[in-house]
Amino acid sequence: MIRTAVIGASGYSGQELLRYLARHPQFELVLVTSRQQAGEPLGKHVAGLPKKLAALTFTDAGPDAALAEKADLFFLAVPHGTAAPYVVALRKAGKTVVDLSADFRTTDPVAYKEFYDHDHPAPQLLDEAVYGLPEIHRAQLVRTKLIAAPGCFPTSIIVPLVPFLQRKLIDPAHLSVTSLSGVSGAGRKLELRLLFGEVADNMYAYGAPKHRHVGEIEQELSLAAGVPVSITFVPHLVPIHRGMVTTTVASLTDPTMTDATAHAVLQAAYGDEPFVDVLASGALPQAREVAHSNRIQVAARVDARTKRLLLFSSLDNLGKGNASQAIQAANLACGLDETTGLT
Amino acid sequence: MIRTAVIGASGYSGQELLRYLARHPQFELVLVTSRQQAGEPLGKHVAGLPKKLAALTFTDAGPDAALAEKADLFFLAVPHGTAAPYVVALRKAGKTVVDLSADFRTTDPVAYKEFYDHDHPAPQLLDEAVYGLPEIHRAQLVRTKLIAAPGCFPTSIIVPLVPFLQRKLIDPAHLSVTSLSGVSGAGRKLELRLLFGEVADNMYAYGAPKHRHVGEIEQELSLAAGVPVSITFVPHLVPIHRGMVTTTVASLTDPTMTDATAHAVLQAAYGDEPFVDVLASGALPQAREVAHSNRIQVAARVDARTKRLLLFSSLDNLGKGNASQAIQAANLACGLDETTGLT
Amino acid sequence: MIRTAVIGASGYSGQELLRYLARHPQFELVLVTSRQQAGEPLGKHVAGLPKKLAALTFTDAGPDAALAEKADLFFLAVPHGTAAPYVVALRKAGKTVVDLSADFRTTDPVAYKEFYDHDHPAPQLLDEAVYGLPEIHRAQLVRTKLIAAPGCFPTSIIVPLVPFLQRKLIDPAHLSVTSLSGVSGAGRKLELRLLFGEVADNMYAYGAPKHRHVGEIEQELSLAAGVPVSITFVPHLVPIHRGMVTTTVASLTDPTMTDATAHAVLQAAYGDEPFVDVLASGALPQAREVAHSNRIQVAARVDARTKRLLLFSSLDNLGKGNASQAIQAANLACGLDETTGLT
Amino acid sequence: MIRTAVIGASGYSGQELLRYLARHPQFELVLVTSRQQAGEPLGKHVAGLPKKLAALTFTDAGPDAALAEKADLFFLAVPHGTAAPYVVALRKAGKTVVDLSADFRTTDPVAYKEFYDHDHPAPQLLDEAVYGLPEIHRAQLVRTKLIAAPGCFPTSIIVPLVPFLQRKLIDPAHLSVTSLSGVSGAGRKLELRLLFGEVADNMYAYGAPKHRHVGEIEQELSLAAGVPVSITFVPHLVPIHRGMVTTTVASLTDPTMTDATAHAVLQAAYGDEPFVDVLASGALPQAREVAHSNRIQVAARVDARTKRLLLFSSLDNLGKGNASQAIQAANLACGLDETTGLT
Repeated sequence: MIRTAVIGASGYSGQELLRYLARHPQFELVLVTSRQQAGEPLGKHVAGLPKKLAALTFTDAGPDAALAEKADLFFLAVPHGTAAPYVVALRKAGKTVVDLSADFRTTDPVAYKEFYDHDHPAPQLLDEAVYGLPEIHRAQLVRTKLIAAPGCFPTSIIVPLVPFLQRKLIDPAHLSVTSLSGVSGAGRKLELRLLFGEVADNMYAYGAPKHRHVGEIEQELSLAAGVPVSITFVPHLVPIHRGMVTTTVASLTDPTMTDATAHAVLQAAYGDEPFVDVLASGALPQAREVAHSNRIQVAARVDARTKRLLLFSSLDNLGKGNASQAIQAANLACGLDETTGLT
Repeated sequence: MIRTAVIGASGYSGQELLRYLARHPQFELVLVTSRQQAGEPLGKHVAGLPKKLAALTFTDAGPDAALAEKADLFFLAVPHGTAAPYVVALRKAGKTVVDLSADFRTTDPVAYKEFYDHDHPAPQLLDEAVYGLPEIHRAQLVRTKLIAAPGCFPTSIIVPLVPFLQRKLIDPAHLSVTSLSGVSGAGRKLELRLLFGEVADNMYAYGAPKHRHVGEIEQELSLAAGVPVSITFVPHLVPIHRGMVTTTVASLTDPTMTDATAHAVLQAAYGDEPFVDVLASGALPQAREVAHSNRIQVAARVDARTKRLLLFSSLDNLGKGNASQAIQAANLACGLDETTGLT
Repeated sequence: MIRTAVIGASGYSGQELLRYLARHPQFELVLVTSRQQAGEPLGKHVAGLPKKLAALTFTDAGPDAALAEKADLFFLAVPHGTAAPYVVALRKAGKTVVDLSADFRTTDPVAYKEFYDHDHPAPQLLDEAVYGLPEIHRAQLVRTKLIAAPGCFPTSIIVPLVPFLQRKLIDPAHLSVTSLSGVSGAGRKLELRLLFGEVADNMYAYGAPKHRHVGEIEQELSLAAGVPVSITFVPHLVPIHRGMVTTTVASLTDPTMTDATAHAVLQAAYGDEPFVDVLASGALPQAREVAHSNRIQVAARVDARTKRLLLFSSLDNLGKGNASQAIQAANLACGLDETTGLT
Repeated sequence: MIRTAVIGASGYSGQELLRYLARHPQFELVLVTSRQQAGEPLGKHVAGLPKKLAALTFTDAGPDAALAEKADLFFLAVPHGTAAPYVVALRKAGKTVVDLSADFRTTDPVAYKEFYDHDHPAPQLLDEAVYGLPEIHRAQLVRTKLIAAPGCFPTSIIVPLVPFLQRKLIDPAHLSVTSLSGVSGAGRKLELRLLFGEVADNMYAYGAPKHRHVGEIEQELSLAAGVPVSITFVPHLVPIHRGMVTTTVASLTDPTMTDATAHAVLQAAYGDEPFVDVLASGALPQAREVAHSNRIQVAARVDARTKRLLLFSSLDNLGKGNASQAIQAANLACGLDETTGLT
């Protein structure tokens, strides 16, 4: 059993980590922190936990050496910017860290500054961090000590695009990406725009054209393409708690590509992946089919009229787009079977 | 007062027409038909009608000369294919017809066949039909006798794009369009996929890459551009009853365009339109802000990184995307002030 | 035209008041206050206003003599406890006040203290206040100067019960009341429990057994019955923005009552009311049928097996349960036709 | 491994059974029938199944001897009335049957006829059937051959009431029960009222005062009380897919009962139950906390003002209110640990 801690467990990410960790046979939850809920039992704030875990108490703990002694594997579910000091302290003590924030996802400090408007707080650790997408970086994730776990937008965009970029089947200069996001992707924050009364019966585009996560997405796509890739990305908020659907339009380099060959590309890349469902002809990804799971659905279609490739994906913002994918990566980092605790 | 009929009023379009017509000062509802609900009072099936109207009875009526005598203005809210025989019979009798189906929206019978897979049922009337978008075809709509009223997808796509295509500010060969549609856009049909249990907590792309309405959309965009325009169009279903949000990505022909100049283009085109809200800097269209109204919100942004223009719009599928816009067009056809009964 | 002010217009009640007042032909909005939004135009925060009104600016104003000079009719949409000082200042200046808070609804200071745990802040004005339910207190509302406008729970409970209590047809000692409330009834507050992520896919009873509004409800029911009435009241929160449905179970005093006689009681009481829909046999109130309106639907059924009367009602929390009913009462207070601006 | 069949798996109950059975270690799915989907793989219609199970094919099978040979444990997820012939055929062959329909829940044929308006189709089997509520009838369920598995309304009402009726703590003549039901409780039927467009933004009471399930509820409550119990029951439909919340108001026989003693009654009855959560002081049952689980939350409160007991419960219509509870009962019938496959 690996002694496991969740730092910052009062948000939706943290709560979902607790639910997944509750059924993980190798990760033993020994520490759960939350500034707001310190001293209270987990069960008061998180539904569906087994009784033993529900009785565990939230504690408060800062990023120091004392914290590092309490566990061996740390999941950080704290906001962007808050994570870095924890990473520094925990890595200094040699601990394995899975950071669910964006702090270590952009490996280039210049790109980081472009999207976050300030210098990176711990650039010395950037080389060490591995982008936590197992389907793309599996080999590097094995036995790594610092995982920069990606969120829902990057996961839903990168997974279907990478095989086509790697094979030069689409023009890397013309990618248009639209995502529909459930509200859990925005976190559990006290903001007027997140009230039920503002979200219900409503939907809208936001954050365009320069959403903060575009930097890490282009980094990963460029890596796959071998040339710089830029995307136009428009996220939309929709009145659903969990779920993300992403649609990408790309120009085909080979205008003879068909639905069948496009499907074959996805199948070749992901047919053996335990958590990627390559949908057969006729089906398109749906949010509900992957809710409460670590699965991502992907599909491809060719628009023969306009010589475009259409890529589709769906995932659970809190699952494959967040908490369960972080556990998938942590399994690799700890030398376990990748699917442990996730099926 | 103009004697007015609604043919096929048991669906969402028909019901919404009744609600708008109930407060129209010049259109007097004298006939409402529905095969399923014939003999029953309107009030049993349509909420929110004034008592006098609620007491009116649905009748059943076929497309014949007897029908034509009963009113002078006919709104057809029947399915695609069912409308054409009514149009033929009513135009023969010299009546004004507002057809909310797609039967007369594509003016080229060849394009019609490409998207509908059969010959047009009444090609002799195609020249007469005017596409019912008042902001684009106002002059032709005045005193016309046959209006092909567009639906929610075309309206939400065409309105923001036309000014940029007319001014050659975007490349007509690279248009990528995504729409998020509330369920009312799919009509009131007994289909498993439309059950609450299938739609709730779910969302997905569908109908890509060759949605039936692409033909009429490209027709209108090409007319504005003066050259053939083709689009890649991906509609999505979201768990909301009313509302549509559309996002379009286009390549700028002039890379120096800014948010301010893009906004100025929309403002010049629509600043005086009674039902188009050109949103100021910082705001993007929202579904709820136009619900239960004949308004459409539009906004433009420039993605300076990728030299793309982003266009946004929102409308109510049953309002500006359907019933109330049909009334707006009918006002023009009848020589009334365009806003009559709509504010 | 009557110079009209809305005090505290950043919440859902205040926003809805603005939408109704925008189309009122006699109440001219001259002042709109909001501490948070002072200096900003109404249109930035409230959708659907006509352009002239959207351009009006929120101001900040305390409960003083200077405020009183600015208008003649004041709607108070501020929280419980905040309203009383405004009422004192405005009544001192002779102004007509419609208080949408609970401050002046309980006429007995002892009952007030029982439910609010502190002494009434302005007991000298309690005698003057008229409970703002036009269907029950119409005569007293005409030309009154202080209206204590009731909220959604009291309106939905009191209206169907009063005719049966007045006629001694039910046992006043055995009333069991359940309400299902949309979230707008809880206001526009920054509370975790009101986030979309907490409300969606969820529902629960709360606030039982001693909800704060029970005092005013029992006051009004006792007045109708002529004897003290006590109720058991359980409100429930459901994931819907607007809408309230209330179901009441009462023991019949006359076991021979039938559905038809129960319906006749409601019909006799409310058949001529412009805003009460007494549903015919077979239909039960629905939330959506009264959304965005000042109407309340009511229906009665007899459970012959158990000799109970079942009463049902539905209304819009922000309409007949709040803003539009306040305007209905204000119309009476100002000597106008009760339906002015509401149909 | 016990060879297991699901008869009628195209509805929500059947689909949910498949999801639970997919992870049951002792029940091996060998047969899944559906008239509409015969010949198609399960995976085409049911999301989230493991690949092996997703590849299994729906078959069509009538209630005959050939069917009985194919498995040893049969779950019937067919509509009321359709189940009885299957029960007759399968019991004749000695098979274990879990009937999720209402056909064998009412043990008295006279009561059956009162609520279903026709004679019971197989009265000879009524004595054999055990009402499938493990918390109430555990001993009889062990090694039984015919389980009449209850639905969501009975489960949510009976569980919290039984301990108070058994102890004579409430007046059996004054029970008022209100339920809020998610739409999945109504099944997967092609009915207009179940369309998303009719359910969204809406809610209403229905089926009162004589809902079909009142008969079996009163049967079970009377059994617990030792005297005839009658209830007034009002179900409500709310716009949520899964979830039921039930609130019951009862008159206390001992007016000195407190919240603490009421809680102690529930705790004594259910404190050791694996699937009943007796909520501590301050908390009330919530639909989301039991979604996708076999748990039921219960809580009790005393209304000291009116001497009433308030009972609250929540469950998942498709979980503890249907499919997973049927498996819990089947575990007992098959001599397994009751929690097998359910945690």
